[in-house]
Amino acid sequence: MINANRAKTLLEALPYIARHKDKVMVIKYGGSAMKKESIKESVVEDLLLMSYVGIKIVLVHGGGDEINKVLAKYNLDVKFVDGLRYTDEETMNIVQMVLTGKVNKDLVKKINTLGGKAIGISGIDNNLIECVPYDNYKLGYVGTIKNINSDIIKDNLAHDYISVIASVGIGESGESFNINADVAATEIAKSINADKLILLTDVPGVLENQKDEHSLISQIYDVEVPTLFDKGIISGGMIPKIKSCVDALNNGVNRVHILDGRIPHSIIMELFSDDGIGTLICKENEPEYKKVEKERVNA
Amino acid sequence: MINANRAKTLLEALPYIARHKDKVMVIKYGGSAMKKESIKESVVEDLLLMSYVGIKIVLVHGGGDEINKVLAKYNLDVKFVDGLRYTDEETMNIVQMVLTGKVNKDLVKKINTLGGKAIGISGIDNNLIECVPYDNYKLGYVGTIKNINSDIIKDNLAHDYISVIASVGIGESGESFNINADVAATEIAKSINADKLILLTDVPGVLENQKDEHSLISQIYDVEVPTLFDKGIISGGMIPKIKSCVDALNNGVNRVHILDGRIPHSIIMELFSDDGIGTLICKENEPEYKKVEKERVNA
Amino acid sequence: MINANRAKTLLEALPYIARHKDKVMVIKYGGSAMKKESIKESVVEDLLLMSYVGIKIVLVHGGGDEINKVLAKYNLDVKFVDGLRYTDEETMNIVQMVLTGKVNKDLVKKINTLGGKAIGISGIDNNLIECVPYDNYKLGYVGTIKNINSDIIKDNLAHDYISVIASVGIGESGESFNINADVAATEIAKSINADKLILLTDVPGVLENQKDEHSLISQIYDVEVPTLFDKGIISGGMIPKIKSCVDALNNGVNRVHILDGRIPHSIIMELFSDDGIGTLICKENEPEYKKVEKERVNA
Amino acid sequence: MINANRAKTLLEALPYIARHKDKVMVIKYGGSAMKKESIKESVVEDLLLMSYVGIKIVLVHGGGDEINKVLAKYNLDVKFVDGLRYTDEETMNIVQMVLTGKVNKDLVKKINTLGGKAIGISGIDNNLIECVPYDNYKLGYVGTIKNINSDIIKDNLAHDYISVIASVGIGESGESFNINADVAATEIAKSINADKLILLTDVPGVLENQKDEHSLISQIYDVEVPTLFDKGIISGGMIPKIKSCVDALNNGVNRVHILDGRIPHSIIMELFSDDGIGTLICKENEPEYKKVEKERVNA
Amino acid sequence: MINANRAKTLLEALPYIARHKDKVMVIKYGGSAMKKESIKESVVEDLLLMSYVGIKIVLVHGGGDEINKVLAKYNLDVKFVDGLRYTDEETMNIVQMVLTGKVNKDLVKKINTLGGKAIGISGIDNNLIECVPYDNYKLGYVGTIKNINSDIIKDNLAHDYISVIASVGIGESGESFNINADVAATEIAKSINADKLILLTDVPGVLENQKDEHSLISQIYDVEVPTLFDKGIISGGMIPKIKSCVDALNNGVNRVHILDGRIPHSIIMELFSDDGIGTLICKENEPEYKKVEKERVNA
Amino acid sequence: MINANRAKTLLEALPYIARHKDKVMVIKYGGSAMKKESIKESVVEDLLLMSYVGIKIVLVHGGGDEINKVLAKYNLDVKFVDGLRYTDEETMNIVQMVLTGKVNKDLVKKINTLGGKAIGISGIDNNLIECVPYDNYKLGYVGTIKNINSDIIKDNLAHDYISVIASVGIGESGESFNINADVAATEIAKSINADKLILLTDVPGVLENQKDEHSLISQIYDVEVPTLFDKGIISGGMIPKIKSCVDALNNGVNRVHILDGRIPHSIIMELFSDDGIGTLICKENEPEYKKVEKERVNA
Repeated sequence: MINANRAKTLLEALPYIARHKDKVMVIKYGGSAMKKESIKESVVEDLLLMSYVGIKIVLVHGGGDEINKVLAKYNLDVKFVDGLRYTDEETMNIVQMVLTGKVNKDLVKKINTLGGKAIGISGIDNNLIECVPYDNYKLGYVGTIKNINSDIIKDNLAHDYISVIASVGIGESGESFNINADVAATEIAKSINADKLILLTDVPGVLENQKDEHSLISQIYDVEVPTLFDKGIISGGMIPKIKSCVDALNNGVNRVHILDGRIPHSIIMELFSDDGIGTLICKENEPEYKKVEKERVNA
Repeated sequence: MINANRAKTLLEALPYIARHKDKVMVIKYGGSAMKKESIKESVVEDLLLMSYVGIKIVLVHGGGDEINKVLAKYNLDVKFVDGLRYTDEETMNIVQMVLTGKVNKDLVKKINTLGGKAIGISGIDNNLIECVPYDNYKLGYVGTIKNINSDIIKDNLAHDYISVIASVGIGESGESFNINADVAATEIAKSINADKLILLTDVPGVLENQKDEHSLISQIYDVEVPTLFDKGIISGGMIPKIKSCVDALNNGVNRVHILDGRIPHSIIMELFSDDGIGTLICKENEPEYKKVEKERVNA
Repeated sequence: MINANRAKTLLEALPYIARHKDKVMVIKYGGSAMKKESIKESVVEDLLLMSYVGIKIVLVHGGGDEINKVLAKYNLDVKFVDGLRYTDEETMNIVQMVLTGKVNKDLVKKINTLGGKAIGISGIDNNLIECVPYDNYKLGYVGTIKNINSDIIKDNLAHDYISVIASVGIGESGESFNINADVAATEIAKSINADKLILLTDVPGVLENQKDEHSLISQIYDVEVPTLFDKGIISGGMIPKIKSCVDALNNGVNRVHILDGRIPHSIIMELFSDDGIGTLICKENEPEYKKVEKERVNA
Repeated sequence: MINANRAKTLLEALPYIARHKDKVMVIKYGGSAMKKESIKESVVEDLLLMSYVGIKIVLVHGGGDEINKVLAKYNLDVKFVDGLRYTDEETMNIVQMVLTGKVNKDLVKKINTLGGKAIGISGIDNNLIECVPYDNYKLGYVGTIKNINSDIIKDNLAHDYISVIASVGIGESGESFNINADVAATEIAKSINADKLILLTDVPGVLENQKDEHSLISQIYDVEVPTLFDKGIISGGMIPKIKSCVDALNNGVNRVHILDGRIPHSIIMELFSDDGIGTLICKENEPEYKKVEKERVNA
Repeated sequence: MINANRAKTLLEALPYIARHKDKVMVIKYGGSAMKKESIKESVVEDLLLMSYVGIKIVLVHGGGDEINKVLAKYNLDVKFVDGLRYTDEETMNIVQMVLTGKVNKDLVKKINTLGGKAIGISGIDNNLIECVPYDNYKLGYVGTIKNINSDIIKDNLAHDYISVIASVGIGESGESFNINADVAATEIAKSINADKLILLTDVPGVLENQKDEHSLISQIYDVEVPTLFDKGIISGGMIPKIKSCVDALNNGVNRVHILDGRIPHSIIMELFSDDGIGTLICKENEPEYKKVEKERVNA
Repeated sequence: MINANRAKTLLEALPYIARHKDKVMVIKYGGSAMKKESIKESVVEDLLLMSYVGIKIVLVHGGGDEINKVLAKYNLDVKFVDGLRYTDEETMNIVQMVLTGKVNKDLVKKINTLGGKAIGISGIDNNLIECVPYDNYKLGYVGTIKNINSDIIKDNLAHDYISVIASVGIGESGESFNINADVAATEIAKSINADKLILLTDVPGVLENQKDEHSLISQIYDVEVPTLFDKGIISGGMIPKIKSCVDALNNGVNRVHILDGRIPHSIIMELFSDDGIGTLICKENEPEYKKVEKERVNA
């Protein structure tokens, strides 16, 4: 009897729905999770389910692949300075156009067609993400975030709109800036005291042994992070990501989740089960410490 | 992989969640569904799930069994006039005490212990259900509803409280009245223009052939009701119930569901699947007629 | 000329009306004042007058007499542990039923019939009075108050409803608890920073000499209380009551009045005249000290 | 026992307080009632009591006597055209100055000193009373009311301020106009759908026989007015007054009271007793007709 | 003395500022006015001044030129069907990207850098502009507007944000549609009952003689339009534009202005002077008819 | 082309409009600026322009000249005590009448006739300006301000009304008091944390050399004031005025402007240009220090 089974599953989900209801979550969406159409569908479905059970969503996205496709049309070479990507003015124009005009609006269309209420904006609108040039234009139009004007996001939250935010910043003289989407999501989460920051990545989470995908660490307290750095367990591209997470925890965000964006419905699986599928980072001394214990079982 | 299956089921429920979000539903709870502890649990779980996915709930209850237990303690005989039960003053005192002090508060405790936010009231509070004596006290303190003061219910809806309402009425001089819980639920649903009125009964719904539980009629339009009366398909105790349903449809309620309260999770099964398990009664000319077509497949 | 005299009296009441307008008062009602029908009438009339001149009312009640009557029907013996009354589960069921279903609703009916807007609730509704078992169930279902969730009361105050609250608490697993109504009223008064806590008792107030009803002490400052304990002027059942009063003064309540509930209209006589009829307890260093001087003349 | 008597009187006033709570009343104050200091005191006391028991007050005043005193200082003669008083520009300047600067502010001071919250304004402020010249300046700066901008009054009502309004109007080019205070009060009452319009006059009310002060007609239905005109029972200066009353009843005001302003506390005596002391004019077919029956006993 | 002159000019502008304060104006911006950087600056300055003196602005824009530049990069040929431009899927993707990601965000940056508070959205966001394919996809992804969901615009107006709206529509299955910016502006103006619809065009307005730029008709009543059509005075591309204007007037918009977008500060010159510089179209029977007379002097 | 020039001037004013939008300014109006009708017109025009571009205005006025004219009519001699003017009761009555009934209402009429929304009140209304007698009635009814009840002003600001306030105070027993309008304006500005306090005076501002009107000091920091006192640059009647300014700066007011009220449109010239025409006094350490630099060039 299919109905009875569905009812059973729905009722099992009840404590998770209860736990997350009315919580504000900032989700960073980018990388591989953006390339495959079926994964994109699954992310949007996750967002809709979250939205319908009362979670308030802010989606911050990048969009590297689409940018590269358009840059190719323009025959623009990718430049590097000291091994870091350089963004000249013409490239920046294209980055802005693709992120805010293609990636952003395509996401919004997908959400709205499935019954959501999404509004696509960017760091430019109402000067949402104010930037200064990184290291005095050393990398061209690469920006450092100076300030977040979160008014629009708060208005959208109040009206239960899903904010879909392209990670482009604005400078003092009205120039656009290329910014890191992880950092943008972190700063936005801080500015609105989000309950959770969820980073969709191309790895299963933090791994004890980076060669073994089954060595996932399910939960890390912020105080453990320095040791994990020292031991080399957190290394490479994961270092700035985890630093960003700890920064978020120190500035009003309650929990950060690092999930494998390549797995379909990874957000739902993380949020609506006890063991989850990624790495949770939180403070050891947070008031809901015991709930953490119940929520997560270490690997 | 249990998590993935759960995610799948949750996502399948999405269109139903979307359809019912923010809708106000009045549920009449009584009869057999109240006697068995396990069914009581399942009803309360259904209410909680509904509440968490954004449905706004008003529960109207009777409580015959508990009343009889206490009447027995008092050695009060049940009296009848013309074959109808007569409620004398002493009995009415006990009915009020049991319904509002035992049944009502026990339901509230169950909901609140599972994480809900229920407030137990009665027709007495803020003169919610104003009555006059039925046929000039012919049946003693049996009341006819004269007016509903729905202010408290509206306040509770605005604060997302679940109203649990004992079906006891109040008269002009402050006397309590025994009232029919089906009628009380109908009048309340009308007074707040509820989206749905759901009657939990002791039968599977309206049956084509009352001896065959598999002859359930899944959907009835109000205009079909007279024919069903004429043909004798609707008969006996189902007649006042269906008249009450049509009255509700004619006065601001969009749909009425008659469900088998003896089946665990019958409300969830009705609301979160296409075919449902009971009988839906609605207007033929309602604006969302086509959605009805999609929602229900006739048996 | 009767009209002119009435006008004169009303105008003399003006300064008292002005002083109390919009003030929140928590009144504990129980004991003898509940037994006599004529006194019950006079208390309800006082509440209505207070309500109409803009005082915001929260009534907390017990109901020992009615409980005993029903316990008798059930042939339940009153048990004692170390000389203290023990509440077993069956008794607690009856206490809950009688307090919330009989005493509470009868009071609500009386108020509403006279034109008031009362809503009857209990410590169970929306988990208003959260309890733990006293001394690990030493006295059975006797509870110690752990927390007050005053949201409903605040909603009721905002809508000018009179909250009528049965002093029954709720435990973590949804069990009901028997609680002392004086303590419940005190905790509620603290949780909403009530302007006044008024305790209707079976004595004239605090007496200099307990054998002389004319030795009433009209006003006591909190700093005088220890001396009154030492001298034995406050003794017996008055000790916990006065401790409760001082606790209230130390936690946001401005004044506590101990009145003789057996005298008709004692609340009105206390509030609408200079000398009053009971004992006022307040802080010596409160900013309105001088008004106190004017308001009360020491015995 | 003075306290008990006071309590008794207060409780007898309860139904009247209940009836008038939250009602908006426009009171026209002028004539003799303004000349005697002791009467002025009594009127202000009445207003305060009304305000404290929840009546919302708009006071519209004239001030002939004070105006004449100042005109005398200026040695200005009173002029007449066709037997009607003519208001030239210099006189109008003085009328405005005295009404808005002396009479108005003196009333405001009296109310505020006794604990009220009065704000003194005039028809000039925010163009409250827009006028055109009467009969093309035939009587100089005598105005006909064209429009009421009741925004300030509504703001004041919302903040529970007592509006004290000097009956001076404003013309299109910013000139002041002398207006009849009865008419101003009527137009203001209509513009805010006042529950009552109360006219304080120099007579006991409408008299059956104008020579016999004991022949007071306690209640008149609007439909009876033409007959009273025909019979000459209503005559002289009472004719425009009663026409104004009927106009008010036809435009959103529920009842009009004509009281003897020379009797101390006449408003309180009228509002807080069954028989009252003046003449009530109301519609025969108003929904609360039966309450009228109870409220008033015809002479 | 420069200061004194400036003060004089500002004061002369006072009646115009007063007239337009708090009015909602929808401005269609496109065509030549978008090509020249200096004109773009002047339009943005006009918007800012309007915004600062209290006008509430909704800007609807096209962006033909920028689209053509990018299409060229992609080597996409412009296709025609029956002489009308055909929009295939690839082209539509580029139209969406350029309008919402380049033109829209560049306008937003310009406004925000000068101190405005602009938010850039499109018909896609929250399904603002719902479309169906024109003539069953005869012209590919060219859309006919079916419905406007003006919620976001209203939120923005309430927060005094300038809405900058790219004229791209969304279809039922989430496809983007190319839409005419004049029509989009008209439909939006209707949906929010805008006070004014202002169309920035490439002509001086409606000309008596199209070869003579000095033959401008300053004001046209809607009833005159058929005659102007018959006489051939309105012809060619002006026909659909004027039909759109009349549609707006018939559906809640008070006035439509056709201005020469090629002239710097044309909006300010039209709004802040008596004679203006373009053509005003309004209803003959509008209540403010006389103000029209004062506002405009016919050529 | 007059339109183009007007547009240019308006656009030049944009940064000033932007800077002052939504700011609360308290303007003290009295002295010579009140005597000449043409100056009065220009002040009112300035207020209207300010109001229309979003500045929120509180006007505090005196009215010496008009008072003297009426005192003359009454043949009242001006009395002096120790060289200071003495206000006896009869004089005070006239001061109140003229200020609140003539000067105040005449200003209100002027503003409202030009399209503003002014409400005229005084320190008497809602006890706005509470006073005690100066030096125990040494100067009769001359008052010292004890407290400001700014509720009405805040209500008026919230509704965008211009408050026009006659500088008359009220004492504890309801007596009126004569108060200095500079001080009243300062206290009011402090009580509402006004952005600016603007004093219209009979001098060009603070002069380096009081005999040379061209020696205006354009800007003074509060820390410079003692030196200016020591050097005698600030002397005579300017001493209490500047002390009042510094008091304002120390209590929540951001800037104080001393302007020459005799020059037409002096407020507009000060607020809408870089160099202004009077003396600005502000704190050296205020956060917007650099904006000050840009705003004012020292003489």
